[in-house]
Amino acid sequence: MERVEHHASFGGWQDVYQHDSISLGCPMKVGVYLPPQVKDGRVPVLYWLSGLTCTEQNFITKSGAQRFAAEHGIMIVTPDTSPRGESVADDPSYDLGHGAGFYVNATQQPWAANYRMYDYVVEELPALIEATFPADDRRAIAGHSMGGHGALVAALRNPGRYRSVSAFSPIVAPSQAPWGERAFTAYLGDDRSAWEQYDTIELIKTVRERLPLLIDQGLDDEFADRELRPSLLQAACEAAEHPLILRQRPGYDHSYYFIASFIDEHMAHHAAALFQ
Amino acid sequence: MERVEHHASFGGWQDVYQHDSISLGCPMKVGVYLPPQVKDGRVPVLYWLSGLTCTEQNFITKSGAQRFAAEHGIMIVTPDTSPRGESVADDPSYDLGHGAGFYVNATQQPWAANYRMYDYVVEELPALIEATFPADDRRAIAGHSMGGHGALVAALRNPGRYRSVSAFSPIVAPSQAPWGERAFTAYLGDDRSAWEQYDTIELIKTVRERLPLLIDQGLDDEFADRELRPSLLQAACEAAEHPLILRQRPGYDHSYYFIASFIDEHMAHHAAALFQ
Repeated sequence: MERVEHHASFGGWQDVYQHDSISLGCPMKVGVYLPPQVKDGRVPVLYWLSGLTCTEQNFITKSGAQRFAAEHGIMIVTPDTSPRGESVADDPSYDLGHGAGFYVNATQQPWAANYRMYDYVVEELPALIEATFPADDRRAIAGHSMGGHGALVAALRNPGRYRSVSAFSPIVAPSQAPWGERAFTAYLGDDRSAWEQYDTIELIKTVRERLPLLIDQGLDDEFADRELRPSLLQAACEAAEHPLILRQRPGYDHSYYFIASFIDEHMAHHAAALFQ
Repeated sequence: MERVEHHASFGGWQDVYQHDSISLGCPMKVGVYLPPQVKDGRVPVLYWLSGLTCTEQNFITKSGAQRFAAEHGIMIVTPDTSPRGESVADDPSYDLGHGAGFYVNATQQPWAANYRMYDYVVEELPALIEATFPADDRRAIAGHSMGGHGALVAALRNPGRYRSVSAFSPIVAPSQAPWGERAFTAYLGDDRSAWEQYDTIELIKTVRERLPLLIDQGLDDEFADRELRPSLLQAACEAAEHPLILRQRPGYDHSYYFIASFIDEHMAHHAAALFQ
């Protein structure tokens, strides 16, 4: 891994690394926040997955999470949202191709060659992080919007892999919303049964592990009704008796101003689980 | 003033307004953070001046200051760093023209028509803010780099106008540093005596008010030795017996990661003065 950015931040270091991803077949950038506690040994890791159009930069420049990562002693790893580069298939629209990987393993052309963000986030990246940095295997995962979807899917499909999961404004039912339907059709094909493994609402029905889902949703979020559909998650969790902490926040929108306002509570939630 | 952005943030609102500036002769954008306390009456205001290449966006998206503004009950006003628009003189380089107003009133062509950032920040903007928002005349001023220079000059030249001043990585001796010399030559002309009114080191020599200067300076700041020259400020304050709190921070660079790491301390400094 080659370090391409290095900034002191809250007594630790906000770095950005570049590495050649095997899953994705292209160079990838990834943010790594090293809290001051790494001086004294290995620390747990929160993986943060960003939303449509984002890169590894959005969360590290706008969320203010480092303040709390430093307080608790948690490393934060922020991957990019898709494979990138001239050799990687793309689409001119913002919600497909570069910046829109949707955290799936694509099976359709021209996407299948590179778009394996699920494997990258769940398998390749943690292995790389735990081999390279003073990180141990206490893992948490969180994300925003498309990244909230990615975090929920990763946690629900991998019992025991994460000690906690949370999301801001997640896409919870991609099979029933325009962004998700478009991306899943392109990446996974027309057979909707192949979509279920990447759909929180479907996964909730059969999941064994009762990991509580902490969700913050702004009530003035311009994408809530059409794309995010938090009420479907609420109904699915009730039906499956799956623990859900859904915090609906009056006035808040879909932006990083919302994330920054409540990131302290998410970091505390993850700290409680990681240091249990 | 027309509101062009509106985001819930820490129980208050991070807004952006656009208005036609009389001083600058062009439309200007300005960030306004309204803390939750405005519900109960007027609040004091911190003016934040940004650095080269910045707009009204940098501080409001990256500093995390709203958390502490909401805690203390302080409005934050973040102007752009220069006049802008097709009719406003510009230069292709990043350190002159758009994004590089240097908080002076230009006297030279082609800049004199629009580049009156000193008047805008010190006179026009506070009058507009105090007439439009639930703000009173308790004022503080702060900034970063070129904006730290602007904040120090505004405070030193206007005794009684600000209750507190602080800066991150300020340009303290523009007359003795390449960015400042280039900009002052363009905006103010070759006669260096006209520069003194915008040079902190010169102003310190004659200032009457003993407003303490709170300065944070990263020791790994890539611009410190050549452009910022904090040791000149230290010497000038010692010679004039002017109160200076200079915090030199090992490892920190010139970025917003530095600002975010210590903005809580600056907000507490301003709160102590504003609510005295």
